Amino acid sequence: MTMAPKASYGISRRALLLGAAAIPALSGTLLPAFAPAQTPAEPLPSWNDGAAKQAILDFVRTTTDRASPGYVAPEERIAVFDQDGTLWVEHPIYTQVAYCLDRVPAVVAEKPELKSVEPFKTVLSGNREAMAKLSLPDLEKILAATLTGMSVEDFEADVKKWLATARHPRWKRPYTELVYQPMLEVLRAFRDNGYKTYIVTGGGQDFVRVYSEQVYGIPPEQVVGSVGGTKFGYAKDGKPFLTKEPKLLLNDDHAGKPEGIHLIIGRRPFAAFGNSVGDRQMLEWTAAGAGTRLNMLVLHDDAAREYAYGPATGLPASKIGTFTQALYDEAKKNSWPVISMKNDWKRIFPFD
Amino acid sequence: MTMAPKASYGISRRALLLGAAAIPALSGTLLPAFAPAQTPAEPLPSWNDGAAKQAILDFVRTTTDRASPGYVAPEERIAVFDQDGTLWVEHPIYTQVAYCLDRVPAVVAEKPELKSVEPFKTVLSGNREAMAKLSLPDLEKILAATLTGMSVEDFEADVKKWLATARHPRWKRPYTELVYQPMLEVLRAFRDNGYKTYIVTGGGQDFVRVYSEQVYGIPPEQVVGSVGGTKFGYAKDGKPFLTKEPKLLLNDDHAGKPEGIHLIIGRRPFAAFGNSVGDRQMLEWTAAGAGTRLNMLVLHDDAAREYAYGPATGLPASKIGTFTQALYDEAKKNSWPVISMKNDWKRIFPFD
Repeated sequence: MTMAPKASYGISRRALLLGAAAIPALSGTLLPAFAPAQTPAEPLPSWNDGAAKQAILDFVRTTTDRASPGYVAPEERIAVFDQDGTLWVEHPIYTQVAYCLDRVPAVVAEKPELKSVEPFKTVLSGNREAMAKLSLPDLEKILAATLTGMSVEDFEADVKKWLATARHPRWKRPYTELVYQPMLEVLRAFRDNGYKTYIVTGGGQDFVRVYSEQVYGIPPEQVVGSVGGTKFGYAKDGKPFLTKEPKLLLNDDHAGKPEGIHLIIGRRPFAAFGNSVGDRQMLEWTAAGAGTRLNMLVLHDDAAREYAYGPATGLPASKIGTFTQALYDEAKKNSWPVISMKNDWKRIFPFD
Repeated sequence: MTMAPKASYGISRRALLLGAAAIPALSGTLLPAFAPAQTPAEPLPSWNDGAAKQAILDFVRTTTDRASPGYVAPEERIAVFDQDGTLWVEHPIYTQVAYCLDRVPAVVAEKPELKSVEPFKTVLSGNREAMAKLSLPDLEKILAATLTGMSVEDFEADVKKWLATARHPRWKRPYTELVYQPMLEVLRAFRDNGYKTYIVTGGGQDFVRVYSEQVYGIPPEQVVGSVGGTKFGYAKDGKPFLTKEPKLLLNDDHAGKPEGIHLIIGRRPFAAFGNSVGDRQMLEWTAAGAGTRLNMLVLHDDAAREYAYGPATGLPASKIGTFTQALYDEAKKNSWPVISMKNDWKRIFPFD
């Protein structure tokens, strides 16, 4: 399912094209979907020419050119990507929160005593306005009730089932289609040049792992997220299983992002992409490494094709939500390139 | 540093040899150490013919042959290996414990008040007999004092320094040389057939990651171990850093092994190698998956070339330490092949 041709690992696009005639001999059983003719003529076709596109191309070239002082050894090539708002749509609510809210009736069916208890009562009412006002502790109760207590296999099956039928309220499409085509091309360009691409998300690690390979070409073992413990046990027939526990091991947001990177990857990334203040420490941690590093922010400034929020609104910092003015200012100060969805992206979604 | 040629990922040894002429065109910048002429004629040269060797060869062939009902897709190919006693020597004490004991003087130099406090007093005395009698809570105090409180970079540098000078008491060689040559060949055979090889150790994840790539060809992101939290902070100059905290996130032993596999990998392995009762749940979790699975145990029955302990001693179960008779019986019952160091291995160490 990995979308990058494995045989190109660590090899520049030019070398790949030059060596293309040799690939079928190696790729017989491995790369059914890959054919040299399908290789795009240039790596970022959905990007307009500009500083953001150039920063990506320059970084990849510099870090993979053995003659460059910024050369990075293949095994060190790690690039990390926030998910919500960086790889796919995060409005009006995080996809995983939509899943949790939709799962409440099933949880209440198993535990009827929750029916008249808040916050479950409000969710069951279907009153979107009241649900939007739920407090953080209430949301945490919903997350704990809907994301734990089942086996890891049952959870995976349930998420798959939900993803197949749930639709985004604005586009009436599966959430998994609301990924940013230009960012899929960035993931591909990094992988084509030997980078391991990781998602580093505040969302649930187990949730994102269900679809990461299919949607992003990122295998589950390259997803770092907020994660709870599991508990090993045996069924009556002696078969072992893992149950998802309500014990939080890592809140993979803000300072938790570099901590999660250390926990799961154990190497400092050379490139990091984010969009909100929750990505700040991940970007700082990446930037603080020696050698050439790339940090970029996605700016949501396209109300017509997606959304405009954060600094793009021109509102005072106090009114800005997840993408604070302070992070935007830090990006400017550090010359971290900012990606304007409106100006840098020719199209937003694969279906555009 | 990865020892497996990346271009062979997912490709059988036979296909690799048949396609060898094509490799240089692809591997120009990637595989400096690789040359087809160096490929060994057969994959497990340090193994005697027998049931154990055959079980490994059969498993690899079955799971990589597209025509076989046991075929495993490349992205699902995960093999896990316990470290201590499975990949390298674990007697007379775990290497990491040796590191921690050697580090005590440096810790006491920074905190002189520990000098007259147990268990540090005993360790400083250098009395090996008294040290061998330290209780588990005492050892935990030593581990906490020597493995936490520093930045992740300082820890890595200190472990590297220690590994360069420390010597095993019996062989008078660096601990990193006391790896089992036959198991290095197993790791290589799995990787040559598209398997991702992981270490799943009760030892410290950060400790093993320091040398895993150099010693086993396993990159740090493929090491699962016991792991504590880290804490993100800023130095006075504003530079971010991660401090190793005394908060245990995962005790990666016994039931913790399948839990750690889920945490770090998120896929069930197809093959698992262990040697002690701490590996039991990992083997059971692996065996319980659908399709073809391989579980194997290393039996330490070679006092002349390494050690004899566990069931090989013929002692009653109550006297047997880490490798209990119960696990050995479970292996027999489930037809998990047992590797006899004495009979199955032509040589033990790379320097033999």
